[in-house]
Amino acid sequence: MNRVNALKKLAFETKGFDGFLLTNEFNLCYLTGCPGLTSLLIPKSGKDTIYAYGVNYEQAKAMTKGFDVQMLERGQNLMERIAKQARGSKIKKLAFDALSIEGYRELAKGLKGNTKLKGRTDLVSELRKVKDTAELELMKKAADLTSMGMKVAYEVIKPGVKEYEVAAEVEYAMRRKGSGGVAFDTIIASGVRSAFPHGGGGTLLGGGCTDRKIQNGDLVVVDMGAVYQHYRSDITRTLAAGRPSPKQTKLYDIVKAAHDSAFQKIRSGAKAKDVDATARKVIVDAGYGDFFVHGLGHGVGLEVHEGPTLSSMSKDKLTDGNVVTDEPGIYIPNFGGVRVEDTILVQKTKAEYLTSGPIGLGPGS
Amino acid sequence: MNRVNALKKLAFETKGFDGFLLTNEFNLCYLTGCPGLTSLLIPKSGKDTIYAYGVNYEQAKAMTKGFDVQMLERGQNLMERIAKQARGSKIKKLAFDALSIEGYRELAKGLKGNTKLKGRTDLVSELRKVKDTAELELMKKAADLTSMGMKVAYEVIKPGVKEYEVAAEVEYAMRRKGSGGVAFDTIIASGVRSAFPHGGGGTLLGGGCTDRKIQNGDLVVVDMGAVYQHYRSDITRTLAAGRPSPKQTKLYDIVKAAHDSAFQKIRSGAKAKDVDATARKVIVDAGYGDFFVHGLGHGVGLEVHEGPTLSSMSKDKLTDGNVVTDEPGIYIPNFGGVRVEDTILVQKTKAEYLTSGPIGLGPGS
Repeated sequence: MNRVNALKKLAFETKGFDGFLLTNEFNLCYLTGCPGLTSLLIPKSGKDTIYAYGVNYEQAKAMTKGFDVQMLERGQNLMERIAKQARGSKIKKLAFDALSIEGYRELAKGLKGNTKLKGRTDLVSELRKVKDTAELELMKKAADLTSMGMKVAYEVIKPGVKEYEVAAEVEYAMRRKGSGGVAFDTIIASGVRSAFPHGGGGTLLGGGCTDRKIQNGDLVVVDMGAVYQHYRSDITRTLAAGRPSPKQTKLYDIVKAAHDSAFQKIRSGAKAKDVDATARKVIVDAGYGDFFVHGLGHGVGLEVHEGPTLSSMSKDKLTDGNVVTDEPGIYIPNFGGVRVEDTILVQKTKAEYLTSGPIGLGPGS
Repeated sequence: MNRVNALKKLAFETKGFDGFLLTNEFNLCYLTGCPGLTSLLIPKSGKDTIYAYGVNYEQAKAMTKGFDVQMLERGQNLMERIAKQARGSKIKKLAFDALSIEGYRELAKGLKGNTKLKGRTDLVSELRKVKDTAELELMKKAADLTSMGMKVAYEVIKPGVKEYEVAAEVEYAMRRKGSGGVAFDTIIASGVRSAFPHGGGGTLLGGGCTDRKIQNGDLVVVDMGAVYQHYRSDITRTLAAGRPSPKQTKLYDIVKAAHDSAFQKIRSGAKAKDVDATARKVIVDAGYGDFFVHGLGHGVGLEVHEGPTLSSMSKDKLTDGNVVTDEPGIYIPNFGGVRVEDTILVQKTKAEYLTSGPIGLGPGS
């Protein structure tokens, strides 16, 4: 309940709300420890109420503590029921984390004009940015599994092996040691495909590798992560299949230098945009600024992309307990790409690598 | 472009809109064939315009055909840009598939009161419910990989093996043969955990298995699926570790009979709620109605849960080309659960199993 209390303090004492409605699956898991919930209503006075459908009701009762767990009936209007409960708890200023247009309208209707309704996605995000001790323990386990997986990638990548076969070996190694799945679709992007930062995939769409056979002379971007008790990790290495060309080595050295220079800047108090600028300057100075087509990094936790954001537009300031990626890259269409990434814990006076994989372009280099 | 044309016909000719804005990742992949896009604006007159951030821009250009692909600048207001384009295309009645409250407000502001804005999630969903020939080919491949994976589960499940070790073997077998990942978090729920239909996990949260060692006498629910080129499949079997008890066998027989009776009703023209009722009657008549705590099934495609819905509340009518699950279950708290599920293609006069796994409670039975 520490996390719920922290949210109450932030939302009620600091921001002046007297109720909070959560519907985002990750926020619900963060606050209750249980996946599969439909929503959570936290009133300033009254019981914190979890709503779960029948399919997850027993799971919700068994896996949560200190909440009133209510079962939703099939076909029942969820927002109507929540509005009724909110009216009963005399909530006058209700924050919510995420609602569709339709959900917002139904809730507003159910509240009958007596309650102000305000989207405040940012409040739980702020809390989630700073990992507590329990979270860091899980994130370190996820990171260790991830580092081990990357070693396997270095062992199996060679000319003639298919991209998805590499993914199979890496994921199997992590899963056998207790990974709960993958943090996101594993990217094995070889040859010209390595110039696509996402390897032709998306976050959720089962892409990221193809049946392309890795060729001698390819760059191969490997971007992947394990999950441990819902917490994720994220690492990227770029290998050369066979002996790297001078241009491949040059690109690698620039990206690695950019990564290292940013790492030196990561600590509590640093502006996220300054960390991005540090890495970007290395790449711009080397003449490849136009080919670094994304931000330097992002927070990692229950989601693979969460706050804080490390980019030129970011307003985030890094703080003790943030976990972020440092992942500069250079992507040259029809040639290939290089990215080097680790997951990093921000501390008061320095940064600490959570992931650690092999360094360099691989066995052939 | 056939799918875009079908949407134009439905949205513009039948429903009277003159523009459609897509932002849902699955809808974007469905309409363009490419993951990782940010949005797509389809005007009645003018170019169909894809918006992608720099990180996915080259991928979008390489993987789509017949669209104008525009790059979004970091920090640019997406909705402002789309509103400008919509005004340029003289759109007066713009449908959208999904927007946050904030996105809706920004878009409405950018449209300056000249364009009506209406959420119509249902229109693309309607199209996606009916799979075309190309989709069915991919879904059959996903289903074949899934059926093969289930055979592996029957081989490896025995007392002493950990839940996540079963998942590791199953996922590895599918991945080695070309699966693009998992259709959802693999569920291996043993013993009393088998009474949680989702095995303690959620869809996205890396749950579904624990490090619990399977015990002699356990029921083990195995629910998993492969992905092939973004298309998913879904299967569940329930095994007994060791020799099943009479009660375990009885529950299995009831659930299997419910599954089979529903299968007989699945065909084009059937009401989805009648199919649910058919399975439910078998379980209610056997005295376990209160323990069948979810609907009978759901559509499968790019997402593991999409339309049509097979439940008592569903208004869907099944039609040729739907792909749905048939998955009755009985879950008895502190005892265990049984579920039997296959992914099924709806055809004019009958149904066809896409998945096919071993039948029965497993080697010990």
